[in-house]
Amino acid sequence: MTRIVVDCFGGDHSPEANIEGAVRALCRFPGLEAVLTGDAEMIGRELKKHGYDSSRLSVEHAPEVISCSETPTLAIKQKKNSSLMRAIELVRTDESVHGIVSTGSTGALIAAATLRIGRLHGVKRPAFCPILPTMKGGVVGICDSGANVDVTPEMLRQFAVMASLYLECAFGVNSPRAALLNVGVEDTKGDELRKAAYPVLASEKRINFTGNMEARELLSGDYDLVVTDGFAGNVLIKSTEGACLEMLKKLKRDIYSRPIYKLGALLMKRMFAEEKDFMDYRNYGGSVLLGCKKLVVKGHGSSNAASVEKCIEQAVRMHEADLIGRIAQAMEQAEQTE
Amino acid sequence: MTRIVVDCFGGDHSPEANIEGAVRALCRFPGLEAVLTGDAEMIGRELKKHGYDSSRLSVEHAPEVISCSETPTLAIKQKKNSSLMRAIELVRTDESVHGIVSTGSTGALIAAATLRIGRLHGVKRPAFCPILPTMKGGVVGICDSGANVDVTPEMLRQFAVMASLYLECAFGVNSPRAALLNVGVEDTKGDELRKAAYPVLASEKRINFTGNMEARELLSGDYDLVVTDGFAGNVLIKSTEGACLEMLKKLKRDIYSRPIYKLGALLMKRMFAEEKDFMDYRNYGGSVLLGCKKLVVKGHGSSNAASVEKCIEQAVRMHEADLIGRIAQAMEQAEQTE
Repeated sequence: MTRIVVDCFGGDHSPEANIEGAVRALCRFPGLEAVLTGDAEMIGRELKKHGYDSSRLSVEHAPEVISCSETPTLAIKQKKNSSLMRAIELVRTDESVHGIVSTGSTGALIAAATLRIGRLHGVKRPAFCPILPTMKGGVVGICDSGANVDVTPEMLRQFAVMASLYLECAFGVNSPRAALLNVGVEDTKGDELRKAAYPVLASEKRINFTGNMEARELLSGDYDLVVTDGFAGNVLIKSTEGACLEMLKKLKRDIYSRPIYKLGALLMKRMFAEEKDFMDYRNYGGSVLLGCKKLVVKGHGSSNAASVEKCIEQAVRMHEADLIGRIAQAMEQAEQTE
Repeated sequence: MTRIVVDCFGGDHSPEANIEGAVRALCRFPGLEAVLTGDAEMIGRELKKHGYDSSRLSVEHAPEVISCSETPTLAIKQKKNSSLMRAIELVRTDESVHGIVSTGSTGALIAAATLRIGRLHGVKRPAFCPILPTMKGGVVGICDSGANVDVTPEMLRQFAVMASLYLECAFGVNSPRAALLNVGVEDTKGDELRKAAYPVLASEKRINFTGNMEARELLSGDYDLVVTDGFAGNVLIKSTEGACLEMLKKLKRDIYSRPIYKLGALLMKRMFAEEKDFMDYRNYGGSVLLGCKKLVVKGHGSSNAASVEKCIEQAVRMHEADLIGRIAQAMEQAEQTE
């Protein structure tokens, strides 16, 4: 049995998308139990639209909502009755609850998860690991992608260990090829951080370190995991998403510029729909915050029902593969060898 | 009169592309004089294929070539007779020479330009400023993009001032909208460097600072200049190029997967050729190394004749607009106000 709390408010399409996503996930995973947090009346009204196994779904009333424009540390202190903070409290206090899925404020989720749920013993900083599709049909993880903008080589080492376990547990990637994001592939390249981190990663036996990689290789499929500080990781993922989206927009505009192009595009309609789908980051689930005592999945703010369902699926997979236990064990091993 | 030295060796398509590029530029700019460095016999043989005004072209024999795999600092010491080092020496010693265009080793060019040509008085670090096209038809500069991986807020301020002048001089951008690359747009966002740099940029009167920007906005056309350390700038430009190229490759593969798509693509043939052209960074000239005493343009290693021509065009424009003089003046002003 996997028990997940779904924060139903804070996203662009919440609560509808979050509720429908939870209902869909319940349908797909008979071993799943979901707790929805948020305004109980609104959630109840929305639930009436769906058929589901009510014995596996409960609602926890939380009338307030934390918006993305609020200062995270203030918001999590002042809005104890928000859908996010009620969800966090459930995860913290209820031993039967395994994790949380939220599509709300990223900053508030990081702060609340770190301060209230807490880090696993030995983890210096929890880190985000979003997933992108590669051109070879697989996926690539990027850790960290923004939770920690100032990091040390030791933190990068932990990111690599945690994210490698995550890719194994949630995506079945065997011995993930982990590379250090750098400005060149030679092992002498980079800033002070990268130069110091390279030997630390190279000597870490619990990861499959393949050396440095350049940003242009992200989608090539030659790497399973990009290890980076949160600043460069954030630039990497946002510029990739930005370039793909801008290019699709440009293609669309150009197609409409001439009738013959429109005719051609008509014949390729299904292909373009598939490309759009391929580029839609909502199809690849959420960004997991690694290093906390329980599972934390951050869905994109623009998540629809399908992407919320994906986030819950990720949580189920991670729970079934005992990701938390494996990270805890890895951290313990590291302490013993130090 | 603009006098430019063209290093004819070191690029993927050199010396042919470099020589043809120089000949084409001579044809376009009657006020241009070119000096080609490299193996004189090979250059002479190649020149026979073209018609040009021989009174404006000369050749400086340099039998050696510095390859991209060599250690820059060693190579520039040991290979005094390389096409790059002969070019650099001409730029350094000959007052009538205004600058250099090279498609060879980036590291060797940075080292040689900094050590031999030298920095303008007051410039802490020369910085690269490559140019990308935006979706609104204009261009966007990224400074620094890799010459300096460890920087200070003061260096970022200088990058912003120099690159703003460059965009004005070479691309006619009036009062370029300069933004600090960051993980969010709020002025409190970022790592220690960004937090310290923000007020420094905001108080710099010689630039049009518009605040923080996120990586996904790079191609939007809402910014003319991205100010960043070389590490994040390198990630930004390489991931953007990588994403665009991988997407074009995927489109091509998908088109060939079904006959109906091939038919559709046939109708859109010209459009796809234009997209490919649009994405081809070789069409946007080279990356200029700002802050040296003379003009330094680094063409992409895979430059063809058209892109070498573009690089020389950039040098001509910068010379005509007296970019070096304007940067020198800006640095002097800064010293006086300090």
